[in-house]
Amino acid sequence: MSAPRRAEQAGEIGGGWRGRSAAVVALTFDVDAETPVLAQGRGFAEHASTMSHQAYGPEVGLPRILDLLDELDVPATFFVPGWVAEHRPALAPSIVERGHEVAHHSYSHRPPTSMTAEEERADFERALAVFDSQGIEIRGHRAALWEASWLTAELVAEHGLRYDSSLMGDDKPYKVVTPAGEIVELPVHWSLDDWEQYAFLPAPHVGSVIESPVKVLELWRAELDGMRHYGGLFNLCVHPFLSGRPGRALALRQFLEYARSCADVSFARCRDVAERAAGDAALTVRRPRPPAVDPDVYPE
Amino acid sequence: MSAPRRAEQAGEIGGGWRGRSAAVVALTFDVDAETPVLAQGRGFAEHASTMSHQAYGPEVGLPRILDLLDELDVPATFFVPGWVAEHRPALAPSIVERGHEVAHHSYSHRPPTSMTAEEERADFERALAVFDSQGIEIRGHRAALWEASWLTAELVAEHGLRYDSSLMGDDKPYKVVTPAGEIVELPVHWSLDDWEQYAFLPAPHVGSVIESPVKVLELWRAELDGMRHYGGLFNLCVHPFLSGRPGRALALRQFLEYARSCADVSFARCRDVAERAAGDAALTVRRPRPPAVDPDVYPE
Amino acid sequence: MSAPRRAEQAGEIGGGWRGRSAAVVALTFDVDAETPVLAQGRGFAEHASTMSHQAYGPEVGLPRILDLLDELDVPATFFVPGWVAEHRPALAPSIVERGHEVAHHSYSHRPPTSMTAEEERADFERALAVFDSQGIEIRGHRAALWEASWLTAELVAEHGLRYDSSLMGDDKPYKVVTPAGEIVELPVHWSLDDWEQYAFLPAPHVGSVIESPVKVLELWRAELDGMRHYGGLFNLCVHPFLSGRPGRALALRQFLEYARSCADVSFARCRDVAERAAGDAALTVRRPRPPAVDPDVYPE
Amino acid sequence: MSAPRRAEQAGEIGGGWRGRSAAVVALTFDVDAETPVLAQGRGFAEHASTMSHQAYGPEVGLPRILDLLDELDVPATFFVPGWVAEHRPALAPSIVERGHEVAHHSYSHRPPTSMTAEEERADFERALAVFDSQGIEIRGHRAALWEASWLTAELVAEHGLRYDSSLMGDDKPYKVVTPAGEIVELPVHWSLDDWEQYAFLPAPHVGSVIESPVKVLELWRAELDGMRHYGGLFNLCVHPFLSGRPGRALALRQFLEYARSCADVSFARCRDVAERAAGDAALTVRRPRPPAVDPDVYPE
Repeated sequence: MSAPRRAEQAGEIGGGWRGRSAAVVALTFDVDAETPVLAQGRGFAEHASTMSHQAYGPEVGLPRILDLLDELDVPATFFVPGWVAEHRPALAPSIVERGHEVAHHSYSHRPPTSMTAEEERADFERALAVFDSQGIEIRGHRAALWEASWLTAELVAEHGLRYDSSLMGDDKPYKVVTPAGEIVELPVHWSLDDWEQYAFLPAPHVGSVIESPVKVLELWRAELDGMRHYGGLFNLCVHPFLSGRPGRALALRQFLEYARSCADVSFARCRDVAERAAGDAALTVRRPRPPAVDPDVYPE
Repeated sequence: MSAPRRAEQAGEIGGGWRGRSAAVVALTFDVDAETPVLAQGRGFAEHASTMSHQAYGPEVGLPRILDLLDELDVPATFFVPGWVAEHRPALAPSIVERGHEVAHHSYSHRPPTSMTAEEERADFERALAVFDSQGIEIRGHRAALWEASWLTAELVAEHGLRYDSSLMGDDKPYKVVTPAGEIVELPVHWSLDDWEQYAFLPAPHVGSVIESPVKVLELWRAELDGMRHYGGLFNLCVHPFLSGRPGRALALRQFLEYARSCADVSFARCRDVAERAAGDAALTVRRPRPPAVDPDVYPE
Repeated sequence: MSAPRRAEQAGEIGGGWRGRSAAVVALTFDVDAETPVLAQGRGFAEHASTMSHQAYGPEVGLPRILDLLDELDVPATFFVPGWVAEHRPALAPSIVERGHEVAHHSYSHRPPTSMTAEEERADFERALAVFDSQGIEIRGHRAALWEASWLTAELVAEHGLRYDSSLMGDDKPYKVVTPAGEIVELPVHWSLDDWEQYAFLPAPHVGSVIESPVKVLELWRAELDGMRHYGGLFNLCVHPFLSGRPGRALALRQFLEYARSCADVSFARCRDVAERAAGDAALTVRRPRPPAVDPDVYPE
Repeated sequence: MSAPRRAEQAGEIGGGWRGRSAAVVALTFDVDAETPVLAQGRGFAEHASTMSHQAYGPEVGLPRILDLLDELDVPATFFVPGWVAEHRPALAPSIVERGHEVAHHSYSHRPPTSMTAEEERADFERALAVFDSQGIEIRGHRAALWEASWLTAELVAEHGLRYDSSLMGDDKPYKVVTPAGEIVELPVHWSLDDWEQYAFLPAPHVGSVIESPVKVLELWRAELDGMRHYGGLFNLCVHPFLSGRPGRALALRQFLEYARSCADVSFARCRDVAERAAGDAALTVRRPRPPAVDPDVYPE
């Protein structure tokens, strides 16, 4: 890709959320462990192979990734479900000790769209209580499965968090106005998620073909070049149980080396991106709300 | 690909729908926004992440694409559901102002094959009323999901439109005879749709693996070379919520630069292709009708 | 691929079904038209776009392929459902006139495994009657969807056909002993079928990602190199409604040019392969029969 | 990939389970034949094409693979369901005669997670009885479909086997403590299984796109480079009915040639890896057990 080295919006460079960079990499890890599988039915707890497949994330993938980040001196953000932090009490503190951010990723990893408002609130607050009991300061949130409800952003604001990272309305940070106040959104996208590339399980049924790390590296590089061209937030979501595997960890390393070789790319934890975005008066402001839907037009 | 630079049917060159070009690129955008998701169930309006994923199309992808088209000086056609034009009243006029065509893409994006004849007619006319109220002159139509019924082409003719772009019976324009008169068909094909390459959503469930822009560029180039060889209409369908993303927009730019570098390729809006095709006496004429099916041979 | 140019079984070269070639290419086309869709439910006859997608095969893809075969002077075999030959009576004769073989591909394209023995027999014989009425001499058969029952080979033998091409028990021809006599099997395989690479439809739901012709060419070349190494029958199955598309037709041409450039590869119609195989005393003989299955081991 | 040639954990080299190698390749073949299809319903025994597709494994793929291993002088492990050994009594002995290992792969290939504890035990012991009657000494086990229950490892220990190869909790061997004693786990992973790359069947429905051997070779090389970097067990799972096909067998050969060209890679049968791992005091010890799941958090 012959991507221009400077963002189009030259006016933004030097100030604003990106500082002097054309693109900012927010390297994030969703440390889901067993939760996405259990959220599909607690009966999967009886599947020993599947449980070991998920436990690989915190037990093998995570330490490998933390070492890689140390070696490359890259800051990152780890979204941890409360259930995972509770069942592995040393996990979240060990991440913070290495200089990274721990953020809220629900309690159970059940998606908000599958819960009532009361259930979503209870799940949200239960995770906060876990992190509070471990002395982990939480600044941001990411909805399970990236399936936020219309209540989600409001819960984030109401509980004093600074940012959410579950919506897909842009490819740079934007402000979201909720009834409980304003937060910063650090948008995600399926194309920057290693799940669609690598995940496979027979039960619960997940995935189809498994992609090569060579293709994933190609995809991430193409998308980073796009972000550099258009001045965006490269919000990469990586799962330790997937990208912690040896060949994939090497591909992640190669991607990070590529990104570091780009003089116009910087790295930041989500909380730091959100902090700068919150102070950027030029940031887009959105008031997301459900579309008015006529039941005569769209059936149930 | 070592594609010959001239279409086989040398006799056609200089006259007919292609003029002096070996292949014509009709660059089209289906500005679906929230409609394909709502058409799968209005309950998805409660999914905030999914709604933001779709709103990205008109809010971020579309302006980026319009700027790209300006920069490269390429004309395009935007198929817009009436619901989208109605809910974002500035959208369709802003496309026309940039010199592009706006065309009819149903009202609700519910496929005709899922509706009764009365429902299809009502949906068709409701979209026309929206465009009429906005002063948008409509010349052509594309069925939602490319799932036309046998009534669809007749509705197009009956309402005085010049062309349809929903069938797949050829790879160059052809005339379709309906009970209400003759129209031009500008055929589409799944291989020239970015949806199968890029779309992914967990709910409603869409897609599997997400392809790299590098692969999609390779696919489009191979298919354009095929069209140059065989003298076809390269009717590319791009969705702003998909190909408006940074890395994909760069790939689209690279494809357009490749196409422009081919001296035997020209670009045209659909209405202009249809106009020339309507006057081409050599165009194939088809009278599509449902096959007679014996219920003893094919069960329900 | 650094494939050796000679088959392993050097002793076979010069005699036997392969003659002096390391591999034989049987280029086959399944001219299914509307049948595989109608076999999933006759209601799909109401889907005008889908019907046009299927009609493209006989109307556009087939003539293009016949021209390509003329140009490259490659013989081929066309498996045609009786329903298609009946509804388009000029189709089968026009193939034979060009020097190619027409073979039996069921009447309705409903798979034998979905029918009773009586239904399968009736469907089999109805197709033979169609071909007989058109003066088309039939030597071989391929089951719809490559889903033969245990009766299929027996029907082939009983009706005096020479070969079947529906099983996957080898990668070279073998003899199949049935209660009605012996036939030659020309085995197929999913990896040499363009359907899994290219097919996509929303309703009936078919396919996921659509592959690039560049990848398909790579796959076919790799598999041909394998056949040259191991001395096999490269039984390629191509669908005119899929590979008749411009970019894919170019890839098919490139594949055929590659195969022709291999001095150790020859081309033959299926009937000619079967003829030579029938006279090859070294051919493997198989007596396929259903495995004995204990209902206590394998549930319904 | 510019993979360093030495494992990170330099301290381990020279001693421990890996000896002086950076990575160990355990080349394994799951000789499933008809069993994975029958396990989805015994009615598939009526599908002649599907049965031939599966029979290709033991009849064509397996001899080809054994010849390839002879030629390259590579030792391997063959996991064979008891049902397959019973129905083809010469199969397991012929593998052992060639110097390879035969290991336990269930009796029926029904996954343990689909059975009661009594059913799993009966299935496990029935396979042992088959191998015992054939004079095949069994040292290890792999669960059908890699879907072990929590009982599986205990059964392995209770019956005096040395190792299991069904879990995914690491990418190097580890010890598993069960109520019946300690065993070695040789972990597997979906990314090192040819099934997700190559398998396709219409009924039972398996797979989507079929990958090219070129891609699979790329994937395996990338993952081996990762294992060399991180010091792991490259536990490759290949199915004779899939990778025994000509083009894929060539890709397997090319992979093995690559692995042999790496001075820091060695090959071993699973039993030999397990033997060395059992004597490695530095091996990780795990006590896998089902997570405690609160039914209020995770619904059925």
